[in-house]
Amino acid sequence: MKMEALVHLVSAIYVVSVLLGTHGPVYGRLVSVNDKPDPKNAAATARWLVSQNSWGVLNTISSELGGAPFGNVVSFSDGEPGKGSGIPYFYLTTLDPTARNALKDHRASLTISEYPIGTCGKVDPENPTCAKITLTGKLKVANGGPKEEIFAKNALFSKHPEMKDWPKDHNFEFFKLDIEDIFLIDWFGGPKPLTVDQYLQAKL
Amino acid sequence: MKMEALVHLVSAIYVVSVLLGTHGPVYGRLVSVNDKPDPKNAAATARWLVSQNSWGVLNTISSELGGAPFGNVVSFSDGEPGKGSGIPYFYLTTLDPTARNALKDHRASLTISEYPIGTCGKVDPENPTCAKITLTGKLKVANGGPKEEIFAKNALFSKHPEMKDWPKDHNFEFFKLDIEDIFLIDWFGGPKPLTVDQYLQAKL
Repeated sequence: MKMEALVHLVSAIYVVSVLLGTHGPVYGRLVSVNDKPDPKNAAATARWLVSQNSWGVLNTISSELGGAPFGNVVSFSDGEPGKGSGIPYFYLTTLDPTARNALKDHRASLTISEYPIGTCGKVDPENPTCAKITLTGKLKVANGGPKEEIFAKNALFSKHPEMKDWPKDHNFEFFKLDIEDIFLIDWFGGPKPLTVDQYLQAKL
Repeated sequence: MKMEALVHLVSAIYVVSVLLGTHGPVYGRLVSVNDKPDPKNAAATARWLVSQNSWGVLNTISSELGGAPFGNVVSFSDGEPGKGSGIPYFYLTTLDPTARNALKDHRASLTISEYPIGTCGKVDPENPTCAKITLTGKLKVANGGPKEEIFAKNALFSKHPEMKDWPKDHNFEFFKLDIEDIFLIDWFGGPKPLTVDQYLQAKL
C-alpha cells in the first residue's frame, strides 16, 4: 500500500472511530489543519487555540513554596463547543493549591499549546509554527451572579462531563481568568502583538 | 465491522504508520498503558512521566508583567530515550521571556501532564488517575562543565532533533531545573508524598 493511501486510510478510520465514540469524551479533538486560522491573524489564532483546547497549565504564586510560580494541569473552558468567549473558566477546589494560591494572590497565567490539538504535524512542540499562548491576568472566583454561573457551568460541563460528578464535599467553585496580557507565538519572528480588546472582539 | 475489530484495525494501522514514520519525530509516543508504573509507586510514576514526555510548561516569575507567574510551552529532556535522569534540561534563549525571567529570579516550576502521552484513556485531563506532576525549584544555566554540556546536548537533541538547527545567532544555552519540591497526583486522594531523593533514586 502506498504511503499516501495509508495516511488516508488512517484518517478515515480515525474519523469513524471518533464518530463511534471509541475516543474520549473530551471535546476539541475533531479538528483538521484547515480549521486553523492563518497565523497572520493573531486574534483569530489565539481564540481558536483557547476554544479548541480542553486543558492547559494554570500558574499561580505559591505561598506554600516561597513565592515560586506553581503550574498545575487544569481543565478549562471558554464556552460551549463552537461558542468560545475567549475568557477561560475553571472549576477549582481549595483542596488543591491552585485555588488556595489564587485566593491569596490573584496573579496568574494560563498556558496552552497547540500540540495536543493534533494540528502541529511533525514539528517539535517548541517549533514556533506550533502555536502557544499564555494569558496573564487575575484568577478570581466567578461571582457575576446567576447568569455568569449558568454560563460557566454550561461552558465547563459541556466540555468536561466528568465535572458534574466531582465530589460535592470538595466545594468546587467556578473561577475565571481576567485577562490583562497575551503572549502568543504562532510563527517565526517572536510573539505577536495582540491586545486583550483585539482578542476578545475577534470572531471565530 | 464490529467495534472491537475496528479498534484493533485502528491500533494496527497506527503502529504501521508510526513505523513508516508518518508520525512526528518527537519521542515518547510509543507507549502502552502497560508501561505505566503502578500509581502506588509514586517515585516510579513521577520518573516515567518526566522521561516519557517531550514537552511541558515551564513557569517563571515575570519581571516584565509585575511579578506574575508566567508559563511557557517548552520542550525538555531528562536524558536520551530510555535513559532518563529525572533532571529536566532545556535549550533556551534570552530572546524568550522565560530565560530572561530565570536569569533575574531562579524560582521556577515545570508542569507535565500524562494526557498527551496518550495513556489516560477516556478520562478527563483533570481526572486524578490521569497523572500530573509539578517539579518546583531553581532554573539555572547548566554550567557543570563539558561533561554536563555533552549530557544536556545528547538528552535534548536525541528527543528534539530540530534543536540542532535552531538559529546560532539566537544564542541558545542549556538550562536545567534544580528540583526542590515535587507535586504529583496519580490517583484519588490528593498529592503523593515524594521527596526529591526518592524521586532521583527511583529506578525505571
